[in-house]
Amino acid sequence: MATMTTSIPAPTVEAEATAPGAIALRVNGDRLMDSIHSTCEFGKAHAYGGHHTETGMARLALNDDDKKVRHWLIEQTKAIGCTVTVDQMGNIFAVRPGKSKTAAPIMMGSHLDTQPSGGRYDGILGVLAGLEVLRTLHDSGYETEGPVGLVNWTNEEGARFPMTTIASGVWAGVIPLETGWNLKEVLPLATDKSAPRTMKQELERIGFLGETPASHEAQPMAAHFELHIEQGPILEDEQRKIGVVTGAQAYSWFEIEVKGRDSHAGTTPLLARKDSVLAAAKMIVASNEVATQFSGLATTGIFEGEPGSINTVAHTVRFTLDVRHPSDETLAQMIAAIREKFDKIAKQDSGRGVDVTWKTLMENAAVAFDKNCIAVVEQSAEEVCGRLSGESPANGLWKHMLSGASHDSCQSTKVCPTSMIFTPTRNGMSHTPDEYCSPEDCALGAQVLLGAVVRYDAAHR
Amino acid sequence: MATMTTSIPAPTVEAEATAPGAIALRVNGDRLMDSIHSTCEFGKAHAYGGHHTETGMARLALNDDDKKVRHWLIEQTKAIGCTVTVDQMGNIFAVRPGKSKTAAPIMMGSHLDTQPSGGRYDGILGVLAGLEVLRTLHDSGYETEGPVGLVNWTNEEGARFPMTTIASGVWAGVIPLETGWNLKEVLPLATDKSAPRTMKQELERIGFLGETPASHEAQPMAAHFELHIEQGPILEDEQRKIGVVTGAQAYSWFEIEVKGRDSHAGTTPLLARKDSVLAAAKMIVASNEVATQFSGLATTGIFEGEPGSINTVAHTVRFTLDVRHPSDETLAQMIAAIREKFDKIAKQDSGRGVDVTWKTLMENAAVAFDKNCIAVVEQSAEEVCGRLSGESPANGLWKHMLSGASHDSCQSTKVCPTSMIFTPTRNGMSHTPDEYCSPEDCALGAQVLLGAVVRYDAAHR
Repeated sequence: MATMTTSIPAPTVEAEATAPGAIALRVNGDRLMDSIHSTCEFGKAHAYGGHHTETGMARLALNDDDKKVRHWLIEQTKAIGCTVTVDQMGNIFAVRPGKSKTAAPIMMGSHLDTQPSGGRYDGILGVLAGLEVLRTLHDSGYETEGPVGLVNWTNEEGARFPMTTIASGVWAGVIPLETGWNLKEVLPLATDKSAPRTMKQELERIGFLGETPASHEAQPMAAHFELHIEQGPILEDEQRKIGVVTGAQAYSWFEIEVKGRDSHAGTTPLLARKDSVLAAAKMIVASNEVATQFSGLATTGIFEGEPGSINTVAHTVRFTLDVRHPSDETLAQMIAAIREKFDKIAKQDSGRGVDVTWKTLMENAAVAFDKNCIAVVEQSAEEVCGRLSGESPANGLWKHMLSGASHDSCQSTKVCPTSMIFTPTRNGMSHTPDEYCSPEDCALGAQVLLGAVVRYDAAHR
Repeated sequence: MATMTTSIPAPTVEAEATAPGAIALRVNGDRLMDSIHSTCEFGKAHAYGGHHTETGMARLALNDDDKKVRHWLIEQTKAIGCTVTVDQMGNIFAVRPGKSKTAAPIMMGSHLDTQPSGGRYDGILGVLAGLEVLRTLHDSGYETEGPVGLVNWTNEEGARFPMTTIASGVWAGVIPLETGWNLKEVLPLATDKSAPRTMKQELERIGFLGETPASHEAQPMAAHFELHIEQGPILEDEQRKIGVVTGAQAYSWFEIEVKGRDSHAGTTPLLARKDSVLAAAKMIVASNEVATQFSGLATTGIFEGEPGSINTVAHTVRFTLDVRHPSDETLAQMIAAIREKFDKIAKQDSGRGVDVTWKTLMENAAVAFDKNCIAVVEQSAEEVCGRLSGESPANGLWKHMLSGASHDSCQSTKVCPTSMIFTPTRNGMSHTPDEYCSPEDCALGAQVLLGAVVRYDAAHR
């Protein structure tokens, strides 16, 4: 698809000169797409079409492919004069100097790790658009007031090590370093299933266990901007180009353990069973009913039964539950309703009964992003979309949105001004190999990111 | 528990002399229990109490512990004059000579492999009671008309290699040898999950890939008798001692694959999903409803989802389905009803729909055992139970039963006269570590087995 890449339409010199507050700098859309597709050679998987870029990704955090792309990123940012720091969680900070030597940098951040059957845009677009912005500043010799940089956050997906945005969470001071270091691989993705590895072991193994404290105090930021694919269908359905993200929905992750009793599948009457698989199946159906009722979301992505034999009723099932809602209060109501249903199933609707225990893996309150950050993104989106539509205001090509997913920005916002920018996502599908954002939309997003950073740098130093 | 073992009450000489057709030979209950518990050191697992025999078993077919117990069995049978043959499926035949050099042997068969969290009696009792009968014949110098022997069938459980009674099935000529040899370990139990091994590889590895054809023509039997724990609650609930088994219920095994689409758990509306875990959960609940409606059984023992990530809707689930009913016709109706429900869930009740495909792993028709075999078991049970109760008839201490589980006898019955004997099972529980049959009941079962074999040998040569 590299051949299909386009730069965004270049405005005339007159238009630039007359637009108040317009940014003359232009990102290079071709170069951005080349960065995305060439680095996606590290970890490509799950081909879905004939073209060499028509594959998904399986670049699990801290695996060998993640190591390769990290080295590439460091090389590229150093080549344009950035100073690179790796912290104790393997977060990579690449900073381009500004006029001020003492100001904290404005950072553009996202992540290079993917889901086991993920795509080429989730996280990757945000980091490489950050690189494209830095390259654009470098090429033009543009001097910012303070430093501007990019950050690649470790294990944002929480796919391999089961806590999403763990490394930005440690940096933000809301998760202890030891919790991050001791986090173990989930079994289905473990290299050695008999000895799942910890994040610290894997950071050490790939050479990214830095010495700089993973802390917003040691590595402060003036602001954090994140460009990301929407991962939902709204922008595409409404034929818009940019989402100005004002916050994110609340969500919680749980591991549910259902304990029954193993017994023979051929000789144990249904009513004499303590069937953990059947009870867990009823619970998953019930959690979906609750999510439907409250217009929220409930998802079970991992389900494991023991002992795992065709003709033995399983004694234990462990499954995960991801529950989300835009409102903290409603999310709490949903979880309470699910707990009640699970208890009822365990006691009254599973033969001789099962035991159910909940382990909370993560709790994230709803997030509201910083007004100043949102404002510069709005201005930048209006300028870029206006140039595209030829109208002012920009004919509804951008809109305010709430994020359905969690992002590193939901951690950074706790300790520094933060906001996000969304781009359209084909069919609203992400976390799947054919996840796709068109080259035009990637370039538009990167241009909005550039405009937001330059404006924030000019206005808030 | 070895210290708790008891021989069955020895009748007075007068009683023996007067009982018509009574068998004077007595099995040694202590020796039987010693054989069980000493060989259960090979593969013991899942302690549930303080005594060294209070553990379950994890002696998966063809693992290193299975190899050890096989060598032990060969050594013990050779020590009492048996000729030992190992066939191409690793089945072990140990035969004690009789007066006739040409007659086919009457065999006592069961299996020494267990479930991953199985117990000390399922299968093991049948083989070691066969050994105890052979030892009793040997000790007394009893000369049978034709040869009498025991057989240890490979992988009866179908736990490691997912086809139950595969090796007796090959011997009976109903399953091709290549099917058996090429059967691969189920993933949850595979030693190396990236390269599951075949039965042939494992037979070779432990040195039990014999050269004798696995065939009832190469290794014919005059009859096959199998002593087994009931694995259900009936004998215990009704305070009986022996089940005279007249047949077995029909059952089928399936692997169901549900294909959906992976997508982000936080941004994909419920109605836009193709959630394979949710659809599979609904299917499992539906199969249970059908089983309840038809008074049959349905069990899902294995459930695996991909890609296996907390915040990704799983694109694929594979689960097993074990469906049973005493009647072939009703079983077919149950399966048809389940198929209909699954199709409806796939098309109408799972967001944007999923695809469901069925793979039949095994189909077993209901079984009726041989009348002559049943008759000698009845006579033997009546004698042994009568001696226990002091009454004639034996006060209801034995009864006719149908087997809920599959056994190697369900294969042997296709090519030679066969029947089974059941002993009580504590709480009706098997395929669980605390599966238990009392030493007294084990000895009673072995004594009934001895009586049946000696009677069949006398009457049908």
